[in-house]
Amino acid sequence: MRNIKLEITYDGTRYKGWQSQTNTDNTIQGILTKELSALCKEPIELIGSGRTDVGVHAYSQIANFHTNSGVALNELKKAVNDKLNNDICITKLNEADPRFHARYNAVGKKYRYRIWNHEEINVFERKYSYHLPTALNINKINEAAKYLLGTHNFKGFSSDKRTKKSTIKTLYIVEVTNHEGMTEFLFHGNAFLYNMVRIMSGTLIEIGLGLKPVSVVPEILESKDRSKAGFTAPPQGLFLQEVLYSEID
Amino acid sequence: MRNIKLEITYDGTRYKGWQSQTNTDNTIQGILTKELSALCKEPIELIGSGRTDVGVHAYSQIANFHTNSGVALNELKKAVNDKLNNDICITKLNEADPRFHARYNAVGKKYRYRIWNHEEINVFERKYSYHLPTALNINKINEAAKYLLGTHNFKGFSSDKRTKKSTIKTLYIVEVTNHEGMTEFLFHGNAFLYNMVRIMSGTLIEIGLGLKPVSVVPEILESKDRSKAGFTAPPQGLFLQEVLYSEID
Repeated sequence: MRNIKLEITYDGTRYKGWQSQTNTDNTIQGILTKELSALCKEPIELIGSGRTDVGVHAYSQIANFHTNSGVALNELKKAVNDKLNNDICITKLNEADPRFHARYNAVGKKYRYRIWNHEEINVFERKYSYHLPTALNINKINEAAKYLLGTHNFKGFSSDKRTKKSTIKTLYIVEVTNHEGMTEFLFHGNAFLYNMVRIMSGTLIEIGLGLKPVSVVPEILESKDRSKAGFTAPPQGLFLQEVLYSEID
Repeated sequence: MRNIKLEITYDGTRYKGWQSQTNTDNTIQGILTKELSALCKEPIELIGSGRTDVGVHAYSQIANFHTNSGVALNELKKAVNDKLNNDICITKLNEADPRFHARYNAVGKKYRYRIWNHEEINVFERKYSYHLPTALNINKINEAAKYLLGTHNFKGFSSDKRTKKSTIKTLYIVEVTNHEGMTEFLFHGNAFLYNMVRIMSGTLIEIGLGLKPVSVVPEILESKDRSKAGFTAPPQGLFLQEVLYSEID
């Protein structure tokens, strides 16, 4: 059986997130599974590196599936892309090691959160950023971001109260940039909890607005108390930027 | 009577262009006129610096109108923006000299044409650029662009065959940039003919693809023959970037 790896980019605006659902066909995974199955002439199971929520975007999501189909990869890529709207696109398709698994083999992810930090609406960025008209204090955000780095129990930065999985994760990079009104947070970690990037972003925003002190970050990590953290920043500002793998792919 | 000057930005995707039409309400001018008239409690006449076509965008369009209303400008701006969808936005509103006229007083305009010059679709730029998968030769385009500079009869670069107005215009700047797959043409001129930016862009694109020689530009200017020029590049790549005025505003 062939193991086929996909790199996918999507504008999440019109979709109910990555993950297939029984009550809607309007998910990225659902749409791709349908088109790939039709072209491979057999039902395929598409494994994504992880979910993205309703309205969240991906510069680069990674997935894989197994198939007996002998279809040529360039044909398959073209045929699927022709079926899709222009807001989902397969950018790469290649044959992977038989053992490659898009979720289990991921060793890290990068997410970007974009804030249009300007008094006026930017009509061209309205679907791809969170509009915040009040100026952020970038120095405070940078100070707070340093406390997020390293290995911590991030439970206080998660919406999922009942998970039995480990809530200990490692953040390698939190980078804050600010260019002509667009403030961006880049998070690179080994893995992320449910809503973790949006809650970290909301917390950094509240710190940048002076609504919370910088010291709230170590307090949230210490107490593991979601209610001490900031709001869940809205989905349209969030982008899955890159999924990282070790040698197997 | 007060003379009020507006700076407006819009995503043209969903609209039938700037200019009001009898058969549709779905124009930028039509929508703004309706909202401003309602808030000023009298019918106003909105004068734009010029039209933009169906699907064309504006970073900054300028307009003005006269009114007897005493409404405070910050209130008016907020009230109109609250009524608009997030794809049209008044970014500035101020009282202008009584003689200021958005069209007659314009002394120049800048337009930008954006090309996503990459094999793959950029899903986030699909509404804000023209996707061209074949690589452009930027050196050739730069060579050709030099012939456009200065004062010429641009009739060959216009769709309007019957105009009785002068077709002699001056281009001050044609700048070609290329950054991470996005190729942009910036045109700064004293005024532009109907479809002139899109036909110049289409011609530069065909030169960059090797479909036409660089020498076609002086030939089009000389012959004034539209059929020698390139295609009319699609509207979603075109942005009105700035309208320039002399001291009166």
